[in-house]
Amino acid sequence: MASSAETAAMRRALDLAALGPRTGPNPRVGCVLLDDRGRTVSEGHHRGAGTPHAEAAALAALAGDVPRGLTAVATLEPCTHTGRTGPCAQALLGAGVRRVVVAALDPNPAAAGGVQLLRSAGVEVETGVLAAEGEELNERWSTAVGRGRPWVTWKWAATLDGRSAAADGSSRWITGEQARTDVHRLRGEHDAVLVGTGTALTDDPALTVRDAQGRPAARQPLRVVVGRRELPAAAALHDGAAPLLHLRTDDLTAALAQLHDREVRTVLVEGGPTLAAALWRAGLVDEVVAYLAPALLGAGPAAVGDLGIGSIDAAARLHLRAVDRVGDDVRLTARPGPPGPTPPSPTPSSSSRPTHPQEA
Amino acid sequence: MASSAETAAMRRALDLAALGPRTGPNPRVGCVLLDDRGRTVSEGHHRGAGTPHAEAAALAALAGDVPRGLTAVATLEPCTHTGRTGPCAQALLGAGVRRVVVAALDPNPAAAGGVQLLRSAGVEVETGVLAAEGEELNERWSTAVGRGRPWVTWKWAATLDGRSAAADGSSRWITGEQARTDVHRLRGEHDAVLVGTGTALTDDPALTVRDAQGRPAARQPLRVVVGRRELPAAAALHDGAAPLLHLRTDDLTAALAQLHDREVRTVLVEGGPTLAAALWRAGLVDEVVAYLAPALLGAGPAAVGDLGIGSIDAAARLHLRAVDRVGDDVRLTARPGPPGPTPPSPTPSSSSRPTHPQEA
Ligand SMILES: NC(=O)c1ccc[n+]([C@@H]2O[C@H](COP(=O)([O-])OP(=O)(O)OC[C@H]3O[C@@H](n4cnc5c(N)ncnc54)[C@H](OP(=O)(O)O)[C@@H]3O)[C@@H](O)[C@H]2O)c1
Ligand SMILES: NC(=O)c1ccc[n+]([C@@H]2O[C@H](COP(=O)([O-])OP(=O)(O)OC[C@H]3O[C@@H](n4cnc5c(N)ncnc54)[C@H](OP(=O)(O)O)[C@@H]3O)[C@@H](O)[C@H]2O)c1
Repeated sequence: MASSAETAAMRRALDLAALGPRTGPNPRVGCVLLDDRGRTVSEGHHRGAGTPHAEAAALAALAGDVPRGLTAVATLEPCTHTGRTGPCAQALLGAGVRRVVVAALDPNPAAAGGVQLLRSAGVEVETGVLAAEGEELNERWSTAVGRGRPWVTWKWAATLDGRSAAADGSSRWITGEQARTDVHRLRGEHDAVLVGTGTALTDDPALTVRDAQGRPAARQPLRVVVGRRELPAAAALHDGAAPLLHLRTDDLTAALAQLHDREVRTVLVEGGPTLAAALWRAGLVDEVVAYLAPALLGAGPAAVGDLGIGSIDAAARLHLRAVDRVGDDVRLTARPGPPGPTPPSPTPSSSSRPTHPQEA
Repeated sequence: MASSAETAAMRRALDLAALGPRTGPNPRVGCVLLDDRGRTVSEGHHRGAGTPHAEAAALAALAGDVPRGLTAVATLEPCTHTGRTGPCAQALLGAGVRRVVVAALDPNPAAAGGVQLLRSAGVEVETGVLAAEGEELNERWSTAVGRGRPWVTWKWAATLDGRSAAADGSSRWITGEQARTDVHRLRGEHDAVLVGTGTALTDDPALTVRDAQGRPAARQPLRVVVGRRELPAAAALHDGAAPLLHLRTDDLTAALAQLHDREVRTVLVEGGPTLAAALWRAGLVDEVVAYLAPALLGAGPAAVGDLGIGSIDAAARLHLRAVDRVGDDVRLTARPGPPGPTPPSPTPSSSSRPTHPQEA
């Protein structure tokens, strides 16, 4: 049983973890150190690859003056993995920590085992404290780790009747300013932004994260284009505002594997319909974010391309996770599969996507 | 100024009015009678054409034992019109009512003037008490009265990507059970349900209001089909479960005028895309209700037909009035025009087609 001071500290650790909005190949983690009377003596959170882990950051904040018998409250199981920094479980042992309280276990086989290591060294370990919140915090990352490929979010913008452009091809703008700003927020939450050569050549997009005043964010996601066609030298994607990767392939599983190797854990697909449909058909989409404008076009290209579905029984069923109004538009967030409790842990997906049986 | 007892009585009168879910050619009205100490002595509401008006119902409930000097709290200006029943303003005068408190004024020129009549007979009249709520209650009806044609709600069901059927034409079911039940509620709120011959011939729909167990409601909206093609004798629409009107025309303005003449004030258009698009292009749609299922088809007929729009600048813009989750689906309610404050209730214009005198 966690004490109320420990549970409160876990809430604080979760808030701290959320300060690292995108920690690249690493999970978001927060840590609070309590003394033997349950008072906070230090805090830390992970700020991204190459920087100290949350536990190490919290210990470092004590500047060597580490009281014995501390309790470490951490949102994620302390790692056992030596990467760019040393393993946290060892660091906690070295600091003589008496007790460790954990929210979520580490799904990464290369880093897991911290709980076991600590226990066998005689440390008291309590797991599952605010576990749902701890898992939610790193859901996309955990899924990517579990599947060995990046989490894929497919975003599109369309009218209420599903058109992504008018009959003459014009599409600026379908949604309003607030929705467009929200897309930049969404980009900023992902490690990479992905488009097909079709979109890159037609729209010449920059795909950078900019604020409402057009100023670029300090950290930019990797810009990725897939497809064999060359991009012109003058393409906006060559502007150097963010790194660019052109994958000259149509093997999307291989493309995602390459991104995973480059430590990309989350990818935002921004189209076009051909690429997105190919990803969908390959069962590579984890989340759909549709911005729908309250407008009708009645003609023009559809936002969603051919998915190889012939009959209503084969419709690709999703379940809504959230419906939000964004300015004058509405944002629908959905995930593949029928509604129901969120599956406990991700399993590597096969190439075919099971469809939800027709509703009664 | 209305007293707090009068404002409370108005809230009650609004609730009573809402009990008459669909009062045909008449507005929904509630009335509460207060004695000189602000205590409720009687209540009434209108239940539909040919039944007593709210004020008359409240007076009748006193069974002739009417104290002098009552205050009548009514959601709508008492009418001055003799139709199937006598004018309410006269009835209130006859009962010796001392004071009348009103929420909304009557937009119907044939029935308005009650406030003036009461005042010139020496009755104290207070108007605009909970006016917004009073107007909201009869918004569709007021708009119809103001325009001299029925209020038109266009409902459709589609996937998230705007398809109303799969590539092979199959469409049962796109949305879930709760959304389908909700459509029956929506039907029940309208005086008539309208489809084109295309839908009547392809889908052979019943278009009746049924509950979750399939039992028909006691009051059914008029079923209307427009188009020149004949319906087969075996069509479900000929089942006698509700009246059927086949308008063999493609002049939609004339068709709506005919419905207005038959005391239809609200019409729910249930498709198909051809008829709905024609209504839209003619500017005859007042509200759009789209049920979107969290599903993708990627191919198949679009829910919204050709609107004659070529470029994004000409997109038909709407504004969202409500976004609601209905079971696993989402219901978007929108109205033509940009977002902004709700326009004040329509005022009858002398240049518009003369309205059919309200049957009261
Ligand atoms: N409304 C929206 O949200 C939205 C978003 C983005 C784009 N769009 C619109 O979409 C249009 C571009 O559409 P698009 O469909 O041509 O662009 P696209 O999907 O971005 O690009 C298609 C290209 O992707 C490449 N590709 C790589 N792997 C593939 C695979 N497995 N299967 C199929 N293609 C693969 C191919 O390139 P190669 O042929 O070079 O090999 C293919 O031609 C533009 O007009 C743009 O405005 C709309
Ligand atoms: N997803 C949904 O919510 C939904 C709803 C309803 C229907 N549907 C589907 O829509 C399909 C039927 O489509 P549809 O477009 O053929 O049906 P429709 O719109 O119901 O009927 C079209 C017919 O309406 C008549 N009409 C009357 N006035 C008109 C005017 N001013 N302009 C054009 N037509 C006028 C014409 O009939 P005449 O030729 O006889 O004169 C025309 O052929 C069915 O497959 C059905 O399943 C889907």
